[in-house]
Amino acid sequence: MKLLFQGGHVVSASGVSRMDVLVEDELVAAVAPTLSCPDATVVDVTGKLLFPGFLDAHTHFDLDVANTTTADDFQTGTRAAVRGGTTTIIDFACPNKGETLAYGLKLWHEKADGKSACDYGFHMTIDDWNAGIRREIPDMIAAGIPTFKMYMTYPAMMIGDRDLYCALVELKKFNAFAGVHCENAGVIDALIAEKLEKGETAPSSHPATRPNALEAEAVGSLLRMAQVADAPVMIVHLSTKEALEEVRAARARGQTVYVETCPQYLLLDRSRYENEDYSMAARYVCAPPLREREDQDALWKALSDGTIQTISTDHCSFTLAQKDAGRGDFTRIPGGLPGVETRGILLYSEGVAKGRISAPQMCALLSETPAKLYGAFPKKGILAPGSDADIVVLDPDAQGRITAADQAANVDYSPYEGFITQGKIDQVYLRGHLTVDKGEILGAPRGKYLFRKC
Amino acid sequence: MKLLFQGGHVVSASGVSRMDVLVEDELVAAVAPTLSCPDATVVDVTGKLLFPGFLDAHTHFDLDVANTTTADDFQTGTRAAVRGGTTTIIDFACPNKGETLAYGLKLWHEKADGKSACDYGFHMTIDDWNAGIRREIPDMIAAGIPTFKMYMTYPAMMIGDRDLYCALVELKKFNAFAGVHCENAGVIDALIAEKLEKGETAPSSHPATRPNALEAEAVGSLLRMAQVADAPVMIVHLSTKEALEEVRAARARGQTVYVETCPQYLLLDRSRYENEDYSMAARYVCAPPLREREDQDALWKALSDGTIQTISTDHCSFTLAQKDAGRGDFTRIPGGLPGVETRGILLYSEGVAKGRISAPQMCALLSETPAKLYGAFPKKGILAPGSDADIVVLDPDAQGRITAADQAANVDYSPYEGFITQGKIDQVYLRGHLTVDKGEILGAPRGKYLFRKC
Amino acid sequence: MKLLFQGGHVVSASGVSRMDVLVEDELVAAVAPTLSCPDATVVDVTGKLLFPGFLDAHTHFDLDVANTTTADDFQTGTRAAVRGGTTTIIDFACPNKGETLAYGLKLWHEKADGKSACDYGFHMTIDDWNAGIRREIPDMIAAGIPTFKMYMTYPAMMIGDRDLYCALVELKKFNAFAGVHCENAGVIDALIAEKLEKGETAPSSHPATRPNALEAEAVGSLLRMAQVADAPVMIVHLSTKEALEEVRAARARGQTVYVETCPQYLLLDRSRYENEDYSMAARYVCAPPLREREDQDALWKALSDGTIQTISTDHCSFTLAQKDAGRGDFTRIPGGLPGVETRGILLYSEGVAKGRISAPQMCALLSETPAKLYGAFPKKGILAPGSDADIVVLDPDAQGRITAADQAANVDYSPYEGFITQGKIDQVYLRGHLTVDKGEILGAPRGKYLFRKC
Amino acid sequence: MKLLFQGGHVVSASGVSRMDVLVEDELVAAVAPTLSCPDATVVDVTGKLLFPGFLDAHTHFDLDVANTTTADDFQTGTRAAVRGGTTTIIDFACPNKGETLAYGLKLWHEKADGKSACDYGFHMTIDDWNAGIRREIPDMIAAGIPTFKMYMTYPAMMIGDRDLYCALVELKKFNAFAGVHCENAGVIDALIAEKLEKGETAPSSHPATRPNALEAEAVGSLLRMAQVADAPVMIVHLSTKEALEEVRAARARGQTVYVETCPQYLLLDRSRYENEDYSMAARYVCAPPLREREDQDALWKALSDGTIQTISTDHCSFTLAQKDAGRGDFTRIPGGLPGVETRGILLYSEGVAKGRISAPQMCALLSETPAKLYGAFPKKGILAPGSDADIVVLDPDAQGRITAADQAANVDYSPYEGFITQGKIDQVYLRGHLTVDKGEILGAPRGKYLFRKC
Repeated sequence: MKLLFQGGHVVSASGVSRMDVLVEDELVAAVAPTLSCPDATVVDVTGKLLFPGFLDAHTHFDLDVANTTTADDFQTGTRAAVRGGTTTIIDFACPNKGETLAYGLKLWHEKADGKSACDYGFHMTIDDWNAGIRREIPDMIAAGIPTFKMYMTYPAMMIGDRDLYCALVELKKFNAFAGVHCENAGVIDALIAEKLEKGETAPSSHPATRPNALEAEAVGSLLRMAQVADAPVMIVHLSTKEALEEVRAARARGQTVYVETCPQYLLLDRSRYENEDYSMAARYVCAPPLREREDQDALWKALSDGTIQTISTDHCSFTLAQKDAGRGDFTRIPGGLPGVETRGILLYSEGVAKGRISAPQMCALLSETPAKLYGAFPKKGILAPGSDADIVVLDPDAQGRITAADQAANVDYSPYEGFITQGKIDQVYLRGHLTVDKGEILGAPRGKYLFRKC
Repeated sequence: MKLLFQGGHVVSASGVSRMDVLVEDELVAAVAPTLSCPDATVVDVTGKLLFPGFLDAHTHFDLDVANTTTADDFQTGTRAAVRGGTTTIIDFACPNKGETLAYGLKLWHEKADGKSACDYGFHMTIDDWNAGIRREIPDMIAAGIPTFKMYMTYPAMMIGDRDLYCALVELKKFNAFAGVHCENAGVIDALIAEKLEKGETAPSSHPATRPNALEAEAVGSLLRMAQVADAPVMIVHLSTKEALEEVRAARARGQTVYVETCPQYLLLDRSRYENEDYSMAARYVCAPPLREREDQDALWKALSDGTIQTISTDHCSFTLAQKDAGRGDFTRIPGGLPGVETRGILLYSEGVAKGRISAPQMCALLSETPAKLYGAFPKKGILAPGSDADIVVLDPDAQGRITAADQAANVDYSPYEGFITQGKIDQVYLRGHLTVDKGEILGAPRGKYLFRKC
Repeated sequence: MKLLFQGGHVVSASGVSRMDVLVEDELVAAVAPTLSCPDATVVDVTGKLLFPGFLDAHTHFDLDVANTTTADDFQTGTRAAVRGGTTTIIDFACPNKGETLAYGLKLWHEKADGKSACDYGFHMTIDDWNAGIRREIPDMIAAGIPTFKMYMTYPAMMIGDRDLYCALVELKKFNAFAGVHCENAGVIDALIAEKLEKGETAPSSHPATRPNALEAEAVGSLLRMAQVADAPVMIVHLSTKEALEEVRAARARGQTVYVETCPQYLLLDRSRYENEDYSMAARYVCAPPLREREDQDALWKALSDGTIQTISTDHCSFTLAQKDAGRGDFTRIPGGLPGVETRGILLYSEGVAKGRISAPQMCALLSETPAKLYGAFPKKGILAPGSDADIVVLDPDAQGRITAADQAANVDYSPYEGFITQGKIDQVYLRGHLTVDKGEILGAPRGKYLFRKC
Repeated sequence: MKLLFQGGHVVSASGVSRMDVLVEDELVAAVAPTLSCPDATVVDVTGKLLFPGFLDAHTHFDLDVANTTTADDFQTGTRAAVRGGTTTIIDFACPNKGETLAYGLKLWHEKADGKSACDYGFHMTIDDWNAGIRREIPDMIAAGIPTFKMYMTYPAMMIGDRDLYCALVELKKFNAFAGVHCENAGVIDALIAEKLEKGETAPSSHPATRPNALEAEAVGSLLRMAQVADAPVMIVHLSTKEALEEVRAARARGQTVYVETCPQYLLLDRSRYENEDYSMAARYVCAPPLREREDQDALWKALSDGTIQTISTDHCSFTLAQKDAGRGDFTRIPGGLPGVETRGILLYSEGVAKGRISAPQMCALLSETPAKLYGAFPKKGILAPGSDADIVVLDPDAQGRITAADQAANVDYSPYEGFITQGKIDQVYLRGHLTVDKGEILGAPRGKYLFRKC
């Protein structure tokens, strides 16, 4: 079956062009100003923007954490993703300390296979380093996992400087690299203890225990270790202006550093934690926490000037009932926000429509650059002959309103409740199949595992 | 007994002036262009520079470390000091982990009392942090110890981020502060393991395992933790241009940071480790290691522009026989250099005489600023009425040559062997007593414990 | 509905008596030599033995361990249990380190609720000890969990001496107690390292790394700590004659010690690991390992003389494919054996029929004593008016043969393959419902959560 | 010079015989019922007992511990020793964690050489285990150190199970062995925390935190590990009846176990800690603590029946001023008692004279057996031709009184103050030199280093 998209404007990282797009056998067959194909079904997308399907390289679906399990599993999570124009997610396989990477990979395949409404790949979390884990690195790459994750905080997952360095050195041998959660562990522990001793247990204590300087500290430290390892590294969910300065300094000395941020750090701020209604505040608890408005400004600027390469979501959702676990002790609030469903339209509305970034920049941040960095390009990330026909049809003239009532994610609130959006996603095609039409998800899950390369 | 120094030029941090100096009862009684005093013994210092006695705030005398004891104890070490114009040293009391600060202080008094040829104080090392140690902080201050030391490297002494932060917070309450040895621990361990596995065991491996970036990493990390603690901090023996950048960045964001460097980082470079003669290379092993010429240039510039506040020596001396312990394994070389005897004349010759710094800058770096920072001013650090009459008479026109054969320190080599100096120290007075005359040390040890204040 | 069992011999811990049994509304209504009840359905059990349903206090269903998940979950595991006459199991809820007990309990309820073919309760595993865990102890008891588990081995679960002692002290306050897995950790690590270094990686190395002395060591150590805590304690799956001696010594000094063993330690021996066929040997890997014949003899004697109180199974099953993970490295073999299905008939055949123990002793070991110790008596563990009508109808004259082909457990081998049994279970009633008839399991899962008391 | 001892009774482990003894060139030349030698000086010892000089295999002289240094160094300590008939001591060289054994040995030679009034050897403490330490074991043996020490308690010195086992295995290869301080660490920590939380800080809390069961626990655990290592082991300063039972059990299973006790555990009891006068109680603080009278009885019986092989002193002395450090916190009391000076006469008076042991048993316990076990026999431990002429002349008919006023040790109290002794030491000869005469120590220190063999 063939589809011919006529009348639309194709967006790529390099520009926006009036192009027709012919799709055949799940792939893009042709992109040209005027195409005709007698046996193709025509889709009229006049006046619409066609984005290559968005890639979200930072999700946590079906994750056991904080004495509970995320509200979204691969079924609901990927439905939310595709509904928001994200046709590929990369989730973090997380073996516990003591488990093998192979086991972690197997578990994540069990969680995802057959249940995903969009294509999916995995990063592998390294929370231990020993001879056995080292020997598994090439196995992971052979299994389509060229990217890894390490934590500089959280006792259950953090890895010390020595092991982090050794892992960077080893990954580099295979042209693989790691994304790192950068926050200082020990000082955060001390600040938490101070708060609990004083009885300051409300959600408003959360951001105070994770100040900007402690993200910057970890970013700075990581980048120095990467310098010694002579290895590239990705800073995930960067949230502060101070951390951006550390990145710029490292690049100025010649290092390869990639940076990711998330919509919540662009659009929400710390005042959310000040709400005296526990539930209204607790729902925003995530780490790093929401920051100040001047951090938002710095991040938008960094998107515009190329300091930041990708926008992912760190989707890690909990219901309000789950968030209730931290009444009386903010450290017990499961940390994380939903986001996979709203990233595309928020970035279009708050970014492109408001002139903070251009449509090609948005395409680079959400599609092309992550596809390239994570080894999925040109299969993903671009609408060009031979690419997967993952297409987001976005109507720039329509308006929408974000509300929890209208979401596929299995969570009973939206951090962006009430946001009015300029632009609206009309349809989403996954490998040529119409998968979302006017917000309705069609058909059985047809997401496939995405085998990625270094 | 009274002494009248006539005809000299008195150096202070603010200038050089033709002044006579009258000394009475161990103190400076008067400083004026022309003084006469019938009952005073006149000392003709025409054409000489009179510096306030130098203060060396970083020595390690009689220290058990690296399976041995430093070659210099308080007797020989302070003789070397005073011979080089240093009339006050501050040594590091080092209790082992598990011992109380009170015990460490008692030990150091036993090591020093009655044996010192110059005045002396102590910093206290914090290598553990717990309720007991915390309660001892005010005791130490009451005992004249307002300054502390922490290590970010070395398993036997290092303190983790959490404890370091807690200590900074506590010290600040008393207006006390800490000097910190900044090098990353874990990555150095990994680099050492790499070297030993490859069989690269010569001294030339030493600097490769402690690259510039790992000093900068630790400095950057410390300064971020100090930012959160809102506490001032001193970087001891800073050695790299990269670390200077971290300091400048912290100051730019409003932090109070003090910096110390040492003559070895100004005057010696990494090529010393390349000598194939083990002994010639091993004698230079210290941590941080000697760096590159461009680091030297950056440090000189930082002295000149005020980025660095003090020059100390980190005198930690071992004989060549002791240095022999690392044949076949560079990690077993006792690390440290002698230096307390030569700092003053080297800084004059290489700094002032060569025009890199001015004489008042030298006076600030070696006398006035350390006296102020470490709570000894104006008793020490200046020649003004009421100050201790610690006087260095320096002949700017004489020349000298540094050689191990002519030193009071108990060590059989000099790192600066063969250096020709412009300028020579004629005499040194400790509280008005002629203690060194043309290199000869006179009289019994008359050094007193220096009680310092926050 | 009423059932009247006529003509059978009721077994209790105190004897065997010709008794009729009337069941009404899930409970035993009457037990007497001759009963009649016009509206009851008569079950003719002439010549049969009626045991109170067996209680297995040591199962691991649906457990993530050793990079895999046990082959049996609560559905298949409890079907196997009830088929073997076990009408109640107590499984171990196992939160990971860092998780709360409440979370562990919730997880285990999710695993078991609605899926169990027999009644079930939980012990709670304590693998961390801190203020939070301590505060949860009364919550657990309030939730029907008066018994706990601790490990002296396995890094992922073990708890140090200090914490173990503190937990014993705390549990005692509530009249609760813990079962402990007793094997020394550090020496086992050293022995494993020795074997791997020598390249001795076959399953036959497994028992050599866990010698009898290291069970005895841990038992001895635990009992001394319990002595100081003045707390009772249960040794689970005791396997060696040496450990029995430690128990006897502790009792001689007045301590309360309970002991459990398992059929595999009574009926299988170490020679099983010597099979050169990897699969034939690996299937027997469990910890503690199978022991020598003289240990078997000592355990049988200890059953007979009352040294051992209970027989459970430590059912922790893996398929032969799962067991394959340890080819080339015996430490990677998932450890554990199936057993929940065969315990009753094996104990009858090898114990009672062979005269090693009496039928009342068997009843004590499998039903009455565990019911009493674990807070379920007289609801469970006895056929007396008011008790649950859990009834095992055992035909002492029939014969059977154990084979993997005839088992409900989800595992493709039986450790007891080919054992001929004297005696056979005809029927099993769970709370009055005929649940197993001639080996066939009837009806939907009707197992209920068993709320237990201290 | 020759000496002929006439008229005395020579004591050996096998009997007491009327023998003359000829000494020549520091050695025993002949032992016979009647000897004459014209050129020898005759010493009339009619009616006296001649013991081979006592060997004390457990002293701590000049040890930095508990924030102080023992009151006795090698000068005063060995003077006290020889005055009490001990002509050989073996002290424990104690490198800190992180230091090499070679360094520890060098330090101890510096402490002892040239200062000792009796002969001396060293055991070497192993408080770390790694490849470097392992390689040093043969070096130590080559240096005359065939015996080692390990601690199962005290954070600064303790070694975990794995390392302890590995050390036992390694030592056995060289026919060397270790003495082990057996007390459980973790539970003691917990008990101390309980006491401090309750504010029970007096010395009477000390024994409560180190109950008998925790010595027995450690002894039992050690002996099981030694069983797996198939290595002999020495229990030092055994103090409880429970620990004796563990030893007997291990021997019954065929293990080689040596046991040492000390006079304080034979002669003093726990009631000493009940004194409300802090100083009177604190002076008795040592670890293990003084026990109950029934432990004393068990120990005397064990001496008599051969369960215990040696009696040493664990001399580790502190002045009353030093003991004062624990006012307000019993854990800060430096632990240890003096004893090297009084062991011989106390054992004679309380043991032999009171009929609890025989004179040959005393000779075995204090001289012959330690000499054999520690590789010094027949040079030491016996009066036989060729042996060192270390002779204690003991007058069985005289009486003495122990008092602090009459002691050579540098400590201002005696734990045995006021004890009346039956028997008194008249003279002590060290290698033929009259070194003590009626309590007066003669001549300069002439103690030599004792090179011992496996």
